Amino acid sequence: MNQTDLGAPKPTELYDGGRAPNPRRVRIFMAEKAIELPIIQIDIAKKEHKTEGFTRLNPMQRLPVLVLEGGAVITESVAICRYLEELYPEPNLFGRTPLERAEVVMWNRRVELGLFASVAAVFRHLHPFMAEFEVPQIAAWGEANKTKVAEQLAFLDSELDSRRFIAGERFTIADITALCAIEFMKPSRLERPAHLLNLARWWDEVSARPSIRP
Amino acid sequence: MNQTDLGAPKPTELYDGGRAPNPRRVRIFMAEKAIELPIIQIDIAKKEHKTEGFTRLNPMQRLPVLVLEGGAVITESVAICRYLEELYPEPNLFGRTPLERAEVVMWNRRVELGLFASVAAVFRHLHPFMAEFEVPQIAAWGEANKTKVAEQLAFLDSELDSRRFIAGERFTIADITALCAIEFMKPSRLERPAHLLNLARWWDEVSARPSIRP
Repeated sequence: MNQTDLGAPKPTELYDGGRAPNPRRVRIFMAEKAIELPIIQIDIAKKEHKTEGFTRLNPMQRLPVLVLEGGAVITESVAICRYLEELYPEPNLFGRTPLERAEVVMWNRRVELGLFASVAAVFRHLHPFMAEFEVPQIAAWGEANKTKVAEQLAFLDSELDSRRFIAGERFTIADITALCAIEFMKPSRLERPAHLLNLARWWDEVSARPSIRP
Repeated sequence: MNQTDLGAPKPTELYDGGRAPNPRRVRIFMAEKAIELPIIQIDIAKKEHKTEGFTRLNPMQRLPVLVLEGGAVITESVAICRYLEELYPEPNLFGRTPLERAEVVMWNRRVELGLFASVAAVFRHLHPFMAEFEVPQIAAWGEANKTKVAEQLAFLDSELDSRRFIAGERFTIADITALCAIEFMKPSRLERPAHLLNLARWWDEVSARPSIRP
């Protein structure tokens, strides 16, 4: 049975956070599925995500936020992507069998808890822009995460020696997460080491997808 | 169609990490579903998760690890739980409709990225036991997370004013995650503030479940 038969309310709009990496994950996911929705831009630099109105929408004060018919609200990028996958199942980005689905979740989380979290810690604790958002900024923690970023990139490079994409032989949400983490290295003032050739081959392939264009 | 019809390989054994919070999440999840599997204990204090043999199983050197018939390996607690949910769908712990599933994922992630991650940072960066595992330990980052833990507990308390469980009116994986995060406060030398009465009411209910007994 197609899950959309269960009476899932349709999405009506997406609150987007511009260039921040989590909103970008969801926009790429939507582009892969050719989902078009009204977009409401929230300017993080102007602290529009800290206003009373936005806090009612998401008490965590984070972006993106998906609003559904009837007023239900879904936050957290992966929760939004899963909901969209149920309503728009093709192209499949979360796996087709129980084992493939488990492998996609495993790899998506490995990238999130490894590379993505480390790049974010470098950005949050070392970038002057974040001084008023991450209180206190702890430079030593930002520096420690530079080492973790390097380790995680080397790990992904070694894994990509034996397969085409992060979670297997086809493009999934785990590739979107890894791509957004690596893009996020630029504002975090980190460079992708040129000697990681498997990662470079993967990067060239995924970053050429139409969904990835800024 | 029941997803188990797709020929999902059966789990054969679980590598467990004793009292660490992520292994505990999976053991509670299994107990809720009355799943019994051979358990292989890995002693983290003896660095058995850093051995060459275990690293072949999980290059991230983390626990738990689920092994399947045919040799496939699933790591990351939530990936393991999702796989078990597909094979053993009752009692349902991830949601029954697309919207409920999205809400469960949203709340599970809010608890993971909020409370759970903050308690873990306190433990990793302030506990003497972690000195040789978290290099460098950064005490200032541990201290900063004490504030975040307090904020997240207050947030959950306010949410639990309007409903019985973390993600809605019934027990789900989001409650398991929150319960393990709060249990993890004890070795992290953090106390649950007594004035958070909704949280206390929820704690009394969930910690009395048979699956939660140590």
